Amino acid sequence: MTQGQAESYRILHEVDLRDYLAGRPKLVTVLGGAPGDWSITEVGDGNLNLVFIVKGARGGVAVKQALPYVRLVGESWPLPLSRAHYEYLALTRQAELAPGLVPSVLHHNDALALTVMELLEPHIIMRKGLIAGTQYPRFVDDVTTFMAQTLFFTSDLALTAAEKKEGIAAFAGNHALCKITEDLIFTDPYRVAEQNRWTAPYLDATAAALRDDMELHVAISRLKLKFMASPEALIHGDLHTGSIMVTGSETRVIDPEFAFYGPMGFDVGAVLANLLMAYFASAGHERAPGERAAFEAWVLETVESVWNGFARKFLDLWRAGATGDAYPVSLFAGEQGAARLEAERQTYMQRLFADTVGFAAAKTIRRIFGLAHNIDFELIEDPKRRAISEARAVRLARGMMVETAAFPAIADVTGAARKLRDWQAELSG
Amino acid sequence: MTQGQAESYRILHEVDLRDYLAGRPKLVTVLGGAPGDWSITEVGDGNLNLVFIVKGARGGVAVKQALPYVRLVGESWPLPLSRAHYEYLALTRQAELAPGLVPSVLHHNDALALTVMELLEPHIIMRKGLIAGTQYPRFVDDVTTFMAQTLFFTSDLALTAAEKKEGIAAFAGNHALCKITEDLIFTDPYRVAEQNRWTAPYLDATAAALRDDMELHVAISRLKLKFMASPEALIHGDLHTGSIMVTGSETRVIDPEFAFYGPMGFDVGAVLANLLMAYFASAGHERAPGERAAFEAWVLETVESVWNGFARKFLDLWRAGATGDAYPVSLFAGEQGAARLEAERQTYMQRLFADTVGFAAAKTIRRIFGLAHNIDFELIEDPKRRAISEARAVRLARGMMVETAAFPAIADVTGAARKLRDWQAELSG
Repeated sequence: MTQGQAESYRILHEVDLRDYLAGRPKLVTVLGGAPGDWSITEVGDGNLNLVFIVKGARGGVAVKQALPYVRLVGESWPLPLSRAHYEYLALTRQAELAPGLVPSVLHHNDALALTVMELLEPHIIMRKGLIAGTQYPRFVDDVTTFMAQTLFFTSDLALTAAEKKEGIAAFAGNHALCKITEDLIFTDPYRVAEQNRWTAPYLDATAAALRDDMELHVAISRLKLKFMASPEALIHGDLHTGSIMVTGSETRVIDPEFAFYGPMGFDVGAVLANLLMAYFASAGHERAPGERAAFEAWVLETVESVWNGFARKFLDLWRAGATGDAYPVSLFAGEQGAARLEAERQTYMQRLFADTVGFAAAKTIRRIFGLAHNIDFELIEDPKRRAISEARAVRLARGMMVETAAFPAIADVTGAARKLRDWQAELSG
Repeated sequence: MTQGQAESYRILHEVDLRDYLAGRPKLVTVLGGAPGDWSITEVGDGNLNLVFIVKGARGGVAVKQALPYVRLVGESWPLPLSRAHYEYLALTRQAELAPGLVPSVLHHNDALALTVMELLEPHIIMRKGLIAGTQYPRFVDDVTTFMAQTLFFTSDLALTAAEKKEGIAAFAGNHALCKITEDLIFTDPYRVAEQNRWTAPYLDATAAALRDDMELHVAISRLKLKFMASPEALIHGDLHTGSIMVTGSETRVIDPEFAFYGPMGFDVGAVLANLLMAYFASAGHERAPGERAAFEAWVLETVESVWNGFARKFLDLWRAGATGDAYPVSLFAGEQGAARLEAERQTYMQRLFADTVGFAAAKTIRRIFGLAHNIDFELIEDPKRRAISEARAVRLARGMMVETAAFPAIADVTGAARKLRDWQAELSG
């Protein structure tokens, strides 16, 4: 599937792309009709890459090409093309582990940093659906399967130590993408940084308080170290609701270019954080009080079901016969051994939950004070109303990060969120 | 320095070795005189490799060649030659970070899995000196410098995340050596395994109790997972007193073929465990009661000084201006920030100490019930007397591993050891 190693990189504009695709018989078959009749539209709305949708007489494909810089910022912020290689590696591994939950790869070209995938239609970015107040009945089951399968089967519970080390090494080169996370999530929002922004002037005092909050700085630094030095499993690395495409009946996880071996809680926390932000943003999108109450209830229920479903599926995989080098079954023989191992599994999940709570908080704060915001909040036009929603999310996040032990169960998170639904922050300005 | 990649591996016996060395002008100069007059003696007493001492008219060298199998066991247990490559990588990195504390490498040949080093003379293996009751006044300062420098400067406190990932990847291929540790230290002593042995029949009941002790199995499994999935720093990986050569005024750490990115506490714990075993073995070597009291006091004092010295030097490096991506100084500005960061440093060291205590316990138990024993105990000829010494060490180790929190400071470890000095176990048989 990988071709064209000898080619050199060039940005494929529409004309080049048409020629490129027309030269791949497999893709010509998928698209159908004459290449000259294919429609090609650039649709990339992410921060990093070019994305084209190409449609022919028979079918369509999505084409993603990495740019040698961060699209959101421009050529002043270079970023290695190799991320397309790691994304391809991750996509193929995820397809094996969670079949049907990631887009199929039709073609990949490392030199061009280009990947052609099945066109997901009529899927939409989940975040947009959440802003519109749409509920997704398949989401919990699909995303928990995706996380449980991809995380468990790339962990020490499923792999030999040698396989695990090979996996870590295979993704070690993706450090430029990790650094974006290290800087933008774990560092910049907590200090003066040129790229930070927030809903000013309303959150000025909150932003200043974060910069002076040393308990929070210790907490975020511990999470950063965990992100850098805990290769627990092959994580997606950017599992927010903008990386998930949905219909009423299907879910696809896309864009794993941040993939590497990191802490599992970073992925699970990303999903929870983005649901919690959808919850807090919801009040900003309602046109009449209570209008979105059913949606909001579904979101919080989904937060609980995501953790509970993930934990159950992960534990079931572990119980079903773990083949990894960690916790060897031979040390837990007999009834007493089985009982002790089961208790240890619960302890393991409790630790993973605490990580999840901390990472969810980190993912929330970066979206409100860092460089990259999300449209859940950004589309609330009235800045004061937006700031009120954001302040609620920040208040919860600060507690989750600094007093993680006060959230021993997922119901503690949703309970705290519910209590903050109508909390009125004192705003600046 | 690396030569002969095109050569193919062959075991160099004395004649081949003489020719090989004679063909390297640099080594001919070091040795001096006519190659035919060089004395060549095989002295390897370790478990894995061939080691030759070669002496010429001017000087001497030590030559280490990896065998494609475990020397202790034979050809039935193959082991990759690549370990010589990782040992060379580690030796050169350690030489940069802790100059003067590792042997100088004069020549390395990856294809032959062969390394020529300076001859350490009149250094002896520290373990032998300890058995003889010798005190080493330089040891504490040197070994704590070695550990603080090599561990700190390869950690996230000193490296960027990208440098760290590159380091991890560079050693990821050394997984066969890691697996020896995973099996022989973290698994086999706790289950029925063909290669286990102990001082029978006296320790039969103790061995059986270990195999049924589920709290211990949970503790060793947590340590094993930490060993496999916590790449904190480039660790030596086998830092026992048989890997340290000493004179009254010099210390050299040798044999880092188990090196990889792992938990720092594994190295520090190895040093402490081997000192504690020397302490407990001492009673078995005394010919008259109290004869070795001064030595034993020095050993326990050394245990304390090793931890305290390591911790102080490690903290000093951190305070002196850490350049790594972890705990960025910019998040701890001002007086309040500096105070909070200093408190966090203490918390970090407390966690590292707990790891150290656990790993020290694991290193002790494997030497008494696993495949590879140490001569501290083995040279106690009377098996009953040996078992009594070993039982004291095991009793301390079991407590350190299962009730680690009961040992918050190094004085708790030495205090417990002192109390067990004359403890009489109930022996089997």
